[in-house]
Amino acid sequence: MKPMTRIEQALATAIASGESPDCPPKLAGAIRHAVFPGGARIRPQLCLAVAQACGDDDPGLSEAAASAIELLHCASLVHDDLPCFDDSPLRRGRASVHYAYGEPLAVLAGDALIVLAFQTLSANAERSPQRLAPLIATIATGVGMPAGIVAGQAWECESRVSLADYQRAKTGALFAAATMAGAQAAGAAAAPWRALGDWLGEAYQAADDIRDVAGDPRVMGKPIGRDVALLRPSAASELGLDGAIAHFDRLVGCAIAAVPDCKGADQLRALVRMEAERLVPKTLSEDLVRITA
Amino acid sequence: MKPMTRIEQALATAIASGESPDCPPKLAGAIRHAVFPGGARIRPQLCLAVAQACGDDDPGLSEAAASAIELLHCASLVHDDLPCFDDSPLRRGRASVHYAYGEPLAVLAGDALIVLAFQTLSANAERSPQRLAPLIATIATGVGMPAGIVAGQAWECESRVSLADYQRAKTGALFAAATMAGAQAAGAAAAPWRALGDWLGEAYQAADDIRDVAGDPRVMGKPIGRDVALLRPSAASELGLDGAIAHFDRLVGCAIAAVPDCKGADQLRALVRMEAERLVPKTLSEDLVRITA
Repeated sequence: MKPMTRIEQALATAIASGESPDCPPKLAGAIRHAVFPGGARIRPQLCLAVAQACGDDDPGLSEAAASAIELLHCASLVHDDLPCFDDSPLRRGRASVHYAYGEPLAVLAGDALIVLAFQTLSANAERSPQRLAPLIATIATGVGMPAGIVAGQAWECESRVSLADYQRAKTGALFAAATMAGAQAAGAAAAPWRALGDWLGEAYQAADDIRDVAGDPRVMGKPIGRDVALLRPSAASELGLDGAIAHFDRLVGCAIAAVPDCKGADQLRALVRMEAERLVPKTLSEDLVRITA
Repeated sequence: MKPMTRIEQALATAIASGESPDCPPKLAGAIRHAVFPGGARIRPQLCLAVAQACGDDDPGLSEAAASAIELLHCASLVHDDLPCFDDSPLRRGRASVHYAYGEPLAVLAGDALIVLAFQTLSANAERSPQRLAPLIATIATGVGMPAGIVAGQAWECESRVSLADYQRAKTGALFAAATMAGAQAAGAAAAPWRALGDWLGEAYQAADDIRDVAGDPRVMGKPIGRDVALLRPSAASELGLDGAIAHFDRLVGCAIAAVPDCKGADQLRALVRMEAERLVPKTLSEDLVRITA
């Protein structure tokens, strides 16, 4: 089965497990809206790719880890879009959850998705119960305090922010959790996989900054220029667009070099290259010169 | 060590585990504000009391279960107080988290507390790893979809609500999780402990309705009359105050009768009686007649 199919099926199973005929129907709708249809599912694909590179000996647990990562990512998008943060009307090309369902249900949908992530892990740990505690530790570290994505978002509330700390927590932490959890779900050690996640998280953040400045909102599915409008720290505003693209290319190179030796290493490196090209096409810089000329 | 001391120490350890010199300081402050000083800690006390009644053979895990329940309860209070729900300025006798720290940090503090709850469980499962998955399942069921406290709060967004479904999810679910998790943390079966939690949850909700109508805001530490003001379903508004008090007494009786036979059953029944008297003093009805005469 293709990785993307495994991810979508695992997410569908997880979401369905939280539904029942007598659950509050609007909350169920808001949760589905937050998760389906998905974006590129970059983090769960990364998690599953690492699990496969490590042997994927408990596929149900690998899929649960990938799903948990994506559910937590979706929860963070729903909460980051709230009026008290970005007040974003759009997400993935359609209404954000609070625009479609209202603010109370957006708060609750995010909360329910965080809970569901951990529930999904525990529900799929029968075959390898000894892997559950370290998996939860890894994934919770990527999300919570002191340096997960929730902490990353909280840096926006501080008057003094280091761009590196902010981006590492806001984006890098969940990428590192994705690679490490993929390894752990397959019974491998997590530590050697941290660097890959760290570099990819930085690269993805750099790509997001670039696309926030250069992207087409029809392609992005969300408003662009938000980082500048919100005075948010951004590599593109610090380095300029060309500098940011060169920075992105360097980060992708570091990520590829950080893939640990394993059976599936070449396949994983190819996936990283493909994903990088999808995020920041080689033609982007020339296109921009043409458009702004 | 007294149960309350065990709970406060376990909560302090959990919160400290999420802090570091380079974490966002305002979020750390908001999280502490949400958890300390606490309220009556009813749910974790209940969890620990059941664990003790079941032998408490892994005290670290019992304390982690009690802490997780309380962290999730605190998270729900922070989010329920938000402007899009109650917009409550007060909680536990001082500023609510969003009044003290602003709305963005209140959203994030709630999120971080949910994550920390599951992290705390996984960090204390070394001695009894086989208990972790069922514990997480129980606690997540009490919080998430389809019928946990998040679902309970979501019923407030529906136009058609059954009072029983609403209250069972909004309050009862976490009480049932507290009793069942207490048993599971001590290696006992969860199912026989569900009824006690269900009855206590209903009784606590009835007490809260009564105090919302009859209570003194200086004692309650939060605004009173909110259920009526927010047109929220309430036993006190449906049954009248005297009817609601009689209803509360019946529920406490059912809870006491539902304590399963075990070594610590008598002690547990005495605790329930004491807690009931604390929540709705026997003199409340007469006091009200005197005040309103």
